[in-house]
Amino acid sequence: MTVRIGIMGYGNLARGVEAAIGQNEDAKLVAVFSRRDPKSLCIATENVPVVSADAVADYADKIDVLVLCGGSATDLPKQTAEYAKLFNVVDSFDTHANIPEHFAQADASSKAAGKISLISCGWDPGMFSIARLYANCILPDGKDYTFWGRGVSQGHSDAIRRIEGVLDARQYTVPVKNALDQVRAGQSPELSVREKHTRECYVVAAEGADLSRIEREIKTMPHYFDEYDTTVHFISMEEMRKNHSGIPHGGFVIRNGCTGFQKENKHTIEYRLQLDSNPEFTGSVLVACARAVYRMNCEGQSGCKTLFDVPPAYLSPLSADELRAKLL
Amino acid sequence: MTVRIGIMGYGNLARGVEAAIGQNEDAKLVAVFSRRDPKSLCIATENVPVVSADAVADYADKIDVLVLCGGSATDLPKQTAEYAKLFNVVDSFDTHANIPEHFAQADASSKAAGKISLISCGWDPGMFSIARLYANCILPDGKDYTFWGRGVSQGHSDAIRRIEGVLDARQYTVPVKNALDQVRAGQSPELSVREKHTRECYVVAAEGADLSRIEREIKTMPHYFDEYDTTVHFISMEEMRKNHSGIPHGGFVIRNGCTGFQKENKHTIEYRLQLDSNPEFTGSVLVACARAVYRMNCEGQSGCKTLFDVPPAYLSPLSADELRAKLL
Repeated sequence: MTVRIGIMGYGNLARGVEAAIGQNEDAKLVAVFSRRDPKSLCIATENVPVVSADAVADYADKIDVLVLCGGSATDLPKQTAEYAKLFNVVDSFDTHANIPEHFAQADASSKAAGKISLISCGWDPGMFSIARLYANCILPDGKDYTFWGRGVSQGHSDAIRRIEGVLDARQYTVPVKNALDQVRAGQSPELSVREKHTRECYVVAAEGADLSRIEREIKTMPHYFDEYDTTVHFISMEEMRKNHSGIPHGGFVIRNGCTGFQKENKHTIEYRLQLDSNPEFTGSVLVACARAVYRMNCEGQSGCKTLFDVPPAYLSPLSADELRAKLL
Repeated sequence: MTVRIGIMGYGNLARGVEAAIGQNEDAKLVAVFSRRDPKSLCIATENVPVVSADAVADYADKIDVLVLCGGSATDLPKQTAEYAKLFNVVDSFDTHANIPEHFAQADASSKAAGKISLISCGWDPGMFSIARLYANCILPDGKDYTFWGRGVSQGHSDAIRRIEGVLDARQYTVPVKNALDQVRAGQSPELSVREKHTRECYVVAAEGADLSRIEREIKTMPHYFDEYDTTVHFISMEEMRKNHSGIPHGGFVIRNGCTGFQKENKHTIEYRLQLDSNPEFTGSVLVACARAVYRMNCEGQSGCKTLFDVPPAYLSPLSADELRAKLL
């Protein structure tokens, strides 16, 4: 059974979804939708139209799942509930604090339409959430840790770019090795924000800019940097292009817990991701999620879901028999 | 909602289940069933009866899920299909090659009874299977690795104990560090059986036994040891009791794969377990599975399932709202 996919938006994540569709034989890209002039966009897949986002409703019968590739700040809070009125949708909404509201709005649209919206798919929220959930179910007495990185934080890089005199910037979130090693070894320390991660910044400054002011503004920026040990490296535009053009990321979800009548036995569950390309990995999760959404909807389910609600088998192109034989 | 649990059998795994029930407020132990004389058994939980396995049918209305704690060699191939005629059941059947047959038999019983049987729950098969499945869905182009250990293999320990002149034995399966390090670093080598694991044996020999014969018989034992680099250490009974009384285990499921239009980006997904007590961890998985089985059956589902078919949320005592707020 082939799942016909539309992509809304065409940034890094959308290209990750497009590439992932090419790796899944049962997925087919039908169209890419954009708010930009369709003629201005050249997509990687041949013979697939780029269509104005305004015309997406014309594709209601041609698409099984619309994958929303906008950002969580302004795009998805509007788009998910809106497009869920017409399509099964998948998004990667990642503003944790606003998930309940986002869920409620998408749920109302999807239920009214008899469709499914699967929100917050990716790796955090997403695969990391699933790792936390399973680990919590198995080890009720325990402590969770999530470490992110080493990887590029788009939000923090953007925040640096808004400082006067900054031409470009890349911020890496880095787990503190000593803290990570302790947790991986089964210890359950109390760790402050500062003790878990450091922030490494690579900055291209305009000629003649006041470097010490820029460095000070970065290190004291509330929420983004002030609670962390931050290092700032000024580099050339050439060095930026050469050494910092990738978008790697990853991290660790670890739960240390105990079992036994006297809680005498300790256990560590660790889930680790190391990703060369954050958007391509996230895009790959979204395509597997699109497959699951289409199946669940074909079975008559509707409403908003998260990966917590999806039986793992629904994400796979293999049959139940094949899965039991090959992967169980 | 409380799930009322019965335990069939009372070995190490059953005691792990019993301890795990004590850690889950929504789980209640109703009775332990045994083929031994019930009067000969003293269980850890107060005010819970030990009942003859012959009388289990009397508990059909008093138990929501019967957790089967027998072995995969001879117990479960009979018990699962038999008890599935009366109860929702959960087992940890782990003979990979026979899973299709075991599934078919349990499915027939459970469907006829309108109940659910959830088979092969534990960590491998179980949590490791789930890790393999998710990783395969996300990274279709890639290679899977499973490393086990360092941990006690009950089957291999038993095999050594059957050798003449052996009083007791403990066999540890150990991943080969160099191979594991390569895979964790994102490489995808082809590895032979010998290159992945070594086997460490601790043996207590009878006085006057021919140690070199015992060592030779171990190292050349077909299937169990002949394909591995095996070391044999002869120790005293006292040393065995002091240093080898635990049942630790664990291991690694790793998938290395690539994404991108030219498959130019690499990714590593790793799931790691380090367990002080194999039976207590497995028992903890079984109790979470019992919760899920009861819910799915209350919703009207029946038949044989594996963890591939269980939405992760069903394993948790938390509500969907709580899960989204706390763990997503």
